[in-house]
Parts: sequence; C-alpha cells; structure tokens
Amino acid sequence: MAGKQVQVRFCVPDLQKERANCSFNKEEITNIFDGGEHNTETRRKLQNIIFSDPNLQDPIPPDYMSHEQRYENELRKAVYVMKKFMTDPQLQDIGGGPEAIKWMYNSILRHAIHKDGNPLMLHFGMFLGAIMGQMSEEQQAEWLPKAMSGEIIGTYTQTELGHGTFLRGLETTATYDPVTDEFIIHSPTITATKWWPGGLGKTSSFAVVMAQLHIRGQNYGPHPFVVQLREHVTHASRPGITVGEIGPRLGLNSNDNGFLRFDNVRIPRTNMVMKHSKVLKDGTYVKPKSAKLSYGVMVLTRVGICYDVCWQLMRATTIATRYAAVRHQSELEVGEAEPQIIEYQTQQYKVLPMIASVYAIWFAADTLRHTYMEVQKNINKGSDLDLLPELHASSCALKALFSTDVTDGISVMRLGCGGHGYLASSNLPRIYTSTTPSQTYEGENTVLWLQVARFLIKSFREASKGGRLQPSVAYFKNHQTQTRRITDLSNSGLVSGYERSVLSMLEAVAKQLQQYSEEGMRYEHAWNACSVRLVNVAKVHARYIVCDQFVKALAKYEGSSGVRQIMDQLCRLYMIYSVTNDQGILLKSGALTPDQCNLLEEELGELLAALRPEAVNLVDAFDLHDEVLDSTLGAWDGDVYNRLYNEAMKSPLNKVDVPDAYYKYLQPLMKSNL
Amino acid sequence: MAGKQVQVRFCVPDLQKERANCSFNKEEITNIFDGGEHNTETRRKLQNIIFSDPNLQDPIPPDYMSHEQRYENELRKAVYVMKKFMTDPQLQDIGGGPEAIKWMYNSILRHAIHKDGNPLMLHFGMFLGAIMGQMSEEQQAEWLPKAMSGEIIGTYTQTELGHGTFLRGLETTATYDPVTDEFIIHSPTITATKWWPGGLGKTSSFAVVMAQLHIRGQNYGPHPFVVQLREHVTHASRPGITVGEIGPRLGLNSNDNGFLRFDNVRIPRTNMVMKHSKVLKDGTYVKPKSAKLSYGVMVLTRVGICYDVCWQLMRATTIATRYAAVRHQSELEVGEAEPQIIEYQTQQYKVLPMIASVYAIWFAADTLRHTYMEVQKNINKGSDLDLLPELHASSCALKALFSTDVTDGISVMRLGCGGHGYLASSNLPRIYTSTTPSQTYEGENTVLWLQVARFLIKSFREASKGGRLQPSVAYFKNHQTQTRRITDLSNSGLVSGYERSVLSMLEAVAKQLQQYSEEGMRYEHAWNACSVRLVNVAKVHARYIVCDQFVKALAKYEGSSGVRQIMDQLCRLYMIYSVTNDQGILLKSGALTPDQCNLLEEELGELLAALRPEAVNLVDAFDLHDEVLDSTLGAWDGDVYNRLYNEAMKSPLNKVDVPDAYYKYLQPLMKSNL
Repeated sequence: MAGKQVQVRFCVPDLQKERANCSFNKEEITNIFDGGEHNTETRRKLQNIIFSDPNLQDPIPPDYMSHEQRYENELRKAVYVMKKFMTDPQLQDIGGGPEAIKWMYNSILRHAIHKDGNPLMLHFGMFLGAIMGQMSEEQQAEWLPKAMSGEIIGTYTQTELGHGTFLRGLETTATYDPVTDEFIIHSPTITATKWWPGGLGKTSSFAVVMAQLHIRGQNYGPHPFVVQLREHVTHASRPGITVGEIGPRLGLNSNDNGFLRFDNVRIPRTNMVMKHSKVLKDGTYVKPKSAKLSYGVMVLTRVGICYDVCWQLMRATTIATRYAAVRHQSELEVGEAEPQIIEYQTQQYKVLPMIASVYAIWFAADTLRHTYMEVQKNINKGSDLDLLPELHASSCALKALFSTDVTDGISVMRLGCGGHGYLASSNLPRIYTSTTPSQTYEGENTVLWLQVARFLIKSFREASKGGRLQPSVAYFKNHQTQTRRITDLSNSGLVSGYERSVLSMLEAVAKQLQQYSEEGMRYEHAWNACSVRLVNVAKVHARYIVCDQFVKALAKYEGSSGVRQIMDQLCRLYMIYSVTNDQGILLKSGALTPDQCNLLEEELGELLAALRPEAVNLVDAFDLHDEVLDSTLGAWDGDVYNRLYNEAMKSPLNKVDVPDAYYKYLQPLMKSNL
Repeated sequence: MAGKQVQVRFCVPDLQKERANCSFNKEEITNIFDGGEHNTETRRKLQNIIFSDPNLQDPIPPDYMSHEQRYENELRKAVYVMKKFMTDPQLQDIGGGPEAIKWMYNSILRHAIHKDGNPLMLHFGMFLGAIMGQMSEEQQAEWLPKAMSGEIIGTYTQTELGHGTFLRGLETTATYDPVTDEFIIHSPTITATKWWPGGLGKTSSFAVVMAQLHIRGQNYGPHPFVVQLREHVTHASRPGITVGEIGPRLGLNSNDNGFLRFDNVRIPRTNMVMKHSKVLKDGTYVKPKSAKLSYGVMVLTRVGICYDVCWQLMRATTIATRYAAVRHQSELEVGEAEPQIIEYQTQQYKVLPMIASVYAIWFAADTLRHTYMEVQKNINKGSDLDLLPELHASSCALKALFSTDVTDGISVMRLGCGGHGYLASSNLPRIYTSTTPSQTYEGENTVLWLQVARFLIKSFREASKGGRLQPSVAYFKNHQTQTRRITDLSNSGLVSGYERSVLSMLEAVAKQLQQYSEEGMRYEHAWNACSVRLVNVAKVHARYIVCDQFVKALAKYEGSSGVRQIMDQLCRLYMIYSVTNDQGILLKSGALTPDQCNLLEEELGELLAALRPEAVNLVDAFDLHDEVLDSTLGAWDGDVYNRLYNEAMKSPLNKVDVPDAYYKYLQPLMKSNL
C-alpha cells in the first residue's frame, strides 16, 4: 500500500511533503465515491479518451467569448459528444451509445466538458426521462428512437414567467377538441409564457409541455404534452410558436435557457404523454392509478441533485485544501517564516468540516437512492405505495439541506482562498454560480422545507395517537416518555440529542398552532404564522437524518481499518461541527448543557489538529482529474503561481501592450493636459 | 404629509395598494440616508443630469459584450465623466470638478454608471488619496494637479501574487542607491508580482507601489513609492516594467485589475511618498512620528466599505421587497387566489430583517465616521493618539461583520426572488458578485477578526487588572461582579445579554489560553489552537456594537414621531433577529433562558406581521432611482413580467430565429437521422 503512494508526477515541495505520509489507502476511498472498483476503472478510461480529444477542448477560455460564441462552443461540443459516443470504437469498448452519454452527463465529468451549461443537457435528462418514464409503450416506440438518435432534440417545459414551484398555478392550457381529435395548446397571458427550460431557446425542436388539461369546460389539472416547436430541416419556429432565449444568468450561460409562447397551437390527441393519465377519442379522461406514482420521478431527480452538489463540494474542497497547503501567509511566531495557511486552526475549520460533509452527503444520498430502488421494486411487484410520501419528504429535506450546505460551503472555500478565490481561473466562482441554482430549481427550498414540516407535524400527531410511523420518524414514538437531556457525547448520544430537539421543537410549534386555532385563526393562517419555526424544525430533522445515516453507514463499512479510522474521525468531526453550529437548538431543548458544549468545542479543536496532516491526502482520494478541477489553485501539482500568471496571460487585453481603448479615450484626456 | 405621498407615476395595482397607506414620512428617511435634505436635493439634481446623458448609457447590456468590449465601454464612460464634471455648466452649479467626481464615486451612483467596475476607480480613490493623505506638501504641489486633471492616471499597488493582508510579507524591494540618489524597485521572485490593483492592467500610467525599503543592507519595512509605469503620449510600458491584466473575476470585470513586475527600475529618491517617513540624500532614514498614524487611512477605507455594502443591501432589499409584493404564488387557503408572496411569514422573514439591517449598518458606520473625524481633529490639534487602536479595532469589526452580513443578505434576497433572482436582468447576481469581494479586500475578514480578538483579549486582561478601558469595551469593567442572567427582554436588556455573553466567552477562551500555556505550549501556538473560539467572540462583540449603536442612535433621533415609531420597530426586529440567531451563544453564557428565547420567537412573528404593510414604503424611502436598481424585478412600477420579457428580447441570440450554430452543428446531426 505504501508503495502505491510513491509519487512520480511532479508536484511542488509543499505538496510532496503532504503526500509523503498517508495513513490510509486512497484508492479505497476513490472506489467508494465511484460506487466500486469497476466504476473507477471505467471513469478513468473515459477520462483518458475525452480529455485527450482536442475537439472537446475550448479554443479560448469561455470567459473571453461573447454570449453567442459561448452557446455555439458548447453546442459544438455537445453534438460532437453525441457523434463520438455513437461511433468511437474506444468508447464502444466501455459501452458507448446514448446510455453512456446519459451516464457521463450524470457524472462529475459533465462539469469538465461543459463548464457553464450544455444545450443538450435537458434532452438527455428530462426529455428522454419523460419519454421513458411517462410515455405509454406505443408512444415510446414512436418517440424514443428519434430522440436517442438526435433526429429530434427536446426539452421539458414546466415553469412559467409567473409560475414556479406551485404546479397547480400553471396557466398554459391544453384544450381538447373532439371534432379534430386534437389538443389546442395556448398561452392566455404574458405570465403563462414558459420560462427557464434549458436548451429551449434555440436548440430544441420538440418540448414536453406541462399544461392544464381542459375537456368540455372542465380542468383536470396539469398534464404533459409533446409539442413540435421547430420545423424539420429548416429549424424555423412553427406557426403559433414564439420561442427564444431568456438572456444571461449568474451562471450556466451556455445552455440557452428559453421562453416559449403558444398561440392556439394544435397537436394530435396522441401527443399527450399517456403512461399514467389518458384522454380517449371521445374526450373521456382516464385517471392515473395513483397520484403517488408521480412522486417517484421527483425523488430520483432530487437524489440526483444531492450527488451533483456533492461533486461540486469535492471540487471546491480539493481546490481550497491544496491551495491552503501551498499558500504561505503571516506569522505563527514573530520573525519566523510564513507558515502554510493550513497550519492555522481557522483555515482547518474552513476546509476539514467541508471534506467531512462530502462523506455525509454521499452516504445520505446513497442510502436514499437504495431505499428508493427497493421501494420501486416492490411497486413493480404490485406492493403498496405507502413509503412513497416518506421518501418524498426525505428527498425534499436532503435536496434543500445539501443545496444550501454546499452553496455555503463553496463560498467558504472561495473565501478561504482569499482574493485569488475571486479569480475565474481558480474555478471557484463557476463552481459557486453553477451550484447555487439548485437552491431554487426542482422545488424552491423554502417550499420544500414547508412540505417536510407538513410531513413532520402529521407524523407527530400520528405518534401522539400511537399510530404507525414511517422509518425516518420512527423516533417520534418515544417522545412523551423521554427526558430531554442526553447522557453521553458519543455519536449516538448526539444523534439522540437531535431527535430530542426535533421533538421539543415540534411540541412547541404544535402548541402554538393549537393556540392560534383556539384564538379563532383558520388553520392555514395559523400555519403561516408559525412557518418560520416550521422551517427551522424541518432543517433540524434533516440534519438528524444525515448524522444518523453517516453513523449507520460507517457501522456497516467493511473495508480496511485505515480507511475506517479516517472516516470515523470525519464522521465525528461532522457530528461535532453540526452540533456546535446548532447548539442554540440543542441547548434550548435541554438536550445539551453549556458544559457539554464546551467539551465539544475542545474536542473540535483536537480533531482539527488530528486531521490536518491528512487533509491533502483526503482530497487526493476524491481522485478529481485536473480537467475536472479546471483550477489554477487546485491542480494536482500545486504550481499555483506559475499557473495564475500563465492563465492571466491568456487575457485578450494582454495581446497588445497598449489597447485601442487608450487611443480612443485616454490619450485625448491625458494629452489635453500636457 | 399624506398629500405628498399621492403617486402620479404609473405602477401596477399591487404596488398602488401597498403605497396607498404609509404611516411615516418617506422623505424624512430618504434624508437620513443622504445625510440631510440638502444632500438629497444635490443627489437628485445629479441623477437628473447623468441619467439623461446618452453618453453614460451602455449601447448594449454589458453581459453581451466580450471582455475587451466591456473594458473599453467603461473606460469610455469614465473618461467622459471626467470631462463632463470639469466642463458641464449644469454640474458646475452643483459643484463640479474632481472633488465632485470623488463625491459621486463615493456614492451609490457609481453603481449606476459603472455597473461592473470602473478603470478609474482607484485613481479617484486610492491614488488621489495617497497623494493627499501621505505625500509631503511639496510632493502634493507636484503631483496633485497632474492627477486631478488626468494628465497622469494612477493606481495603488500593495498586494502581490504571494502576499495579501500580511503587509510585512511583501517581497517587492526599494533599495536606495546614494550614488545616484535613486531607489531601485525590483520584483525578486514570481510571488513578488504585484497582483490585483484596479486600473493597473492597461489604464494607469503611474502607481503608488508598496515595497520593502532597503538602505545599506537594512530593511526598514514596507513604504510607498511613486513609479511611472507607462510613457507619456505613447502609453507604452516603460523599460523594466511588465504590466498587464490578471484575467476575469467572479465580478467587477471592467476595471482591468492588473499585475506588475519590476526589473531593477530606477526612480528618483524624491518619489518616495514622504509625509510620514523620509529618506534623506545621505541615506538617513527619518521615522514617522507615530506608527499609529497609518491606522487613520485604514479606518476611513473600512468605513467606506461599510457604507458601500449598505447601499448594496438597499438595492437588494428594494428589489426583493417590490418583487415579493408583485409576485403571486401558491395558496394560503385551498382554492383561493394565489397571494402576494410577501403575505408568507417565511418571505417576511427574508426581507424585513434585511431592511432593518440597512439602518443598523448605517447608524454604526455613521457613528464610527463621526468618532473618527472627532479623533482626527484632536490629532491635528496635537492631542494624543490613544483612541486610534480602538477605532482601528472597531473598523475591522464592522467591515468584517457588514461585508459578511450583506453578502449573505443579498443571497437571501436573490433566493427570495426564486429562479428569477438568478437572471442577470434582476441585477441581484451583479449586486452579489460586486459585494462579496469586500470580504477579502482591505483586510481578509478572518485576519481582521483575529485582530479584533487580540484587542478584546488585551482589554479583558486590562479590565481584570482594573486598568483603563477604551469606550467600545468599557462594559468589561463589571465583568467580575455581574451575574450572567438578564432580567428583562427590552432592547437594553438584550444589549446587556450580548455584553455578558462576550465576557463569558472571553473568560472561557482566556482560561483555555492559560491552560495551554501551563501545559508548555508557546503563546502563539496556544493562540492558534484557540483561534476558532477567538473569531467567534470577536463576531459577538461586533454584533454587540451594532445593536448598541442602533439603540443609541434612535434615542438621540429628533425627527417626526411616525419615522421614530417605524425605526423603533425596525430596531426591535434587528435586535430579536440577531439574538434569536445567536441564541446558542446567549443560552450558553446563561444570559438567556429557553423560555425567554421562546418569547422572543413569538415576538418576532408579531413584528413581522406588524411591519409587513410598511415593507414597500420602507424600501421606497431609500429613494433608489430605477437606474440605480437596474432591475427588471425591482423597478418602481413593478411591471415585472413585461420588463423580464423585454429584457430577454435584447439577447443577441434572439436577433434571428435560427442561429448559425444550428446550421453548423445541429442540422448535420438531425438530418443524418431523417
């Protein structure tokens, strides 16, 4: 094992020193995050192929391109990826084709190829997903081959200019005309304009459109329909369709997010997406078997977001940790050489808990995904759907928690790199700007927290009546008999502290809801008047799930003792970091005493010191290729200053010593005073 | 008064309704933030002049421009501003000239003219500042007229590729050569490369350069020198000078942040900036009268940052609040119309505390500025400099606190606008990206917090010995006699709760420092091992200062009772928001009980409901011109959806229905499958 760690690649002495000793087998950790040795191998093969292909490189850094050039550049690469995966023999060896493209675009590699968005992302994600998951078998037979081959390019359009997370508020209508056997798709107002879908502006020729289904004057609620937006061959937008790009964003500027308006556009009845609901020729509406079925897609989408933000945090922690080992600053002792900034406890406190968070997120997301697949299997066998609401609540909680944790964590990593973290060439700006939208898409986080709270309050009432509880809230059952104070500060003690705090908060908010009701407030208003507290309890419950899963995942871990030991330390760090951040909640509920908080703070300091020598090795173990990091500060060799300088030299402003702008504007000013 | 509120300008019905009733005189609040009626009038006159000048408009939104075009566009406007302020008779009426430019660039208007950075910003800020503040009178006579007229353009270069906040670590050298009466400026390593200064890359012909002063083999530490970088007329970089742009950033991409290397560049001895220190012809070094004098400039710079982030928060809260009154979403009651999202408590909890924060920041910054001016007057009269370290500590604390609070607050405002907050046209992305660098520039925040902690620990020890305490820590004097628990939840009770918590934290950390020392750890290492806790106590002390100043400012306020009342509510909201966020600290110290926390949470809910009807009027009172807001979501008329749509239509991708990229890349793919 030690032999494997010997490095032959060049790196700066500071990193050589960090890498010289490693207490654990890095490769074993790499395999965890790849989901097994085989996947690590496949990923590395794929990396070798795509990162050596000049067609997948950018001719100049995209930051120097105009808005139009950036779109064109990404479209070029996205189309090239399709061709390459269909035809390149090297790729067929490791399983080419559209499935492999989907696999790659659902991996961290997508960030390396398409740095700031990909016009075909929604085609491979939501459009193919809707075909495969929501279409009837006949429909799939018609649409899937065309979409797989790229004969048609599609996207998924749900949100509107005036309507987001609240699906029932959508205004676009699909009105059935039995005379012609068609639906009429229409945007009745400006706020009904479809707004946001990736790839919609200029790329897609088709879209799945969510619209209110109207039959004979009755509204059956939002349903999906396939609509052709652009003509074959000419790609001209079709009659009745107004489509375009919505303009620049904080990030993800290369995926032509678009708008779309319909002026009474007619489509065949059979273009309704009909796996679950149907409309017959005579206008009869056929309901889906269960409304809960639609939860499934959302659960998977949100688990996908958890993995994605986890990768982003891996990227950010790798960059910040390596830079902290290379950067020297200030003095620990007067007159001595400036130490590596990772020697500072304040810096350790920035990077190490975020490295631990990567594991916490990973284990929680992975557990949820496995549970979902288990449940899905049962559903296919015809079992009941009882667990779906529970999974739905957990996926809302984890998506909201991790999108926030990671966005904040990336900011901490960026600021932990000082001013240089603000440079585009550090890549931390882009990692931030492409992560933060996960806080609002696929369910705005505050709305999700309130959904989690609704599940908690319902379960809490169920528990009070001695009713059946779902697994994630099984701990509610003891709530009336438990004392609040925890007796030990072990991990299980702290997990139990979270449990007790959630119950204490639920008790308080249930009482307040009750009180408002007694004062004559309607339930919805009482709910609203308690909603800040409801969001808080949902957040604490989510943190409980994550802590609990982290501890449980390690209890089951069967790898080497070295890896087990370092993960135990990271788990402990995550626990204490979380509890000390939430100390107000744990103190208020009486779960913890002030003295216990002090003990935890001291232990935190000790853990930071103990983990500091492992920091660089820990991020090395994420095994992120330099092309995935794309960072002057985070590259494997740590040659930070030369990289910063060389990257700056690429600025078009540096092509000439004196820019034209000088002659046009500055020279007249400066000369006029000579 | 009510008569003045009648609106004749068009706005959407939702905002009409909000504006129909206002319990206070908006103009009185506007005057507070302008610093008096006269200033409000001047600002409005200036706005009328500059916002109607087509030369100060952007031909297309800068987001669509390339990196070079953006620089050129801002340089054009910056030079035009100089000419206009020198010559436009309208501007002379309200006091034109360079002083007026400085005034404008130190006001919120600068964000309206230069949306993403200004190549001349450092010229008017730091370069003129260094001339006026740090040069001797003879030097000023030589340099000031040239800099004022624009004959020379300068910047201020301190940070290096490998060196930031830690001034003593700078590597650039200025070695005195008595034979030629010159200094030799040199960059000995790549890490010595000057890096970051605005306007350095292509604009400036001169720079103030911080370099280690060497005389006869002895290093006297960093001192400022004026160096000519580019030739007159040709603007070519001079021999021995390597200068260029450092490449794109997260934001502020139009101010040619630059790098600079010296290869033994000779400058006359008299180019040393010599108000405080001097080098005589024979090589004699003349020390400054007091090392504390240099604190003055930093205090003012950091106060300036506090005002600037305050304006940014005004912009963000105005946008988010107006949008929250226009946006309708979800249901409060099943089947009823979707309410304005500002009806939701969770939304109120996002915007209202941030509106209150604007006042908190303003009063704290204003108090510090006035104290500084008072102290400066005494110094000029020859009084002692004792208060400068105190002012220095307070300015570090407020800069670090407010840059963080506001950056986070802007994120909350952006996320509070849902997906649309991610659109560049909301302007929230740019407000964020141009605010967050304040967390690392002019002193990286973690370093500043540790400086504040050093001041606190020193003062705490002084207090234990019964020594003299500076005003901001006068409360330390009672620390041994006080019980921790506060007896009432009034504002002064809560302020006192903060005092007690700071003291409790200081006691704990002082004990830990002591313990480490007794265990044989060297002091610097013990300090480092306590530094996470030290940063925490510094933050709580800073929050104490702000709460205390807010309460005190209102106690002195002599305006109308309507304004007084609304500001009292905002102050109370700020207090409770702060205390409930910091409840862990107040509970741990024993200042608060869990029951008291619950009472405060209930009061928070009541305050949000009470302030909700005033929300739009409160942000109206900031009186931000639509050009200052530059936001589709935040414009005065609330015509959000038409503005979003119209702004999107400006995208160059929307100029044609089918972009060239289609024919180049997509068509071959899609046709090959037909």
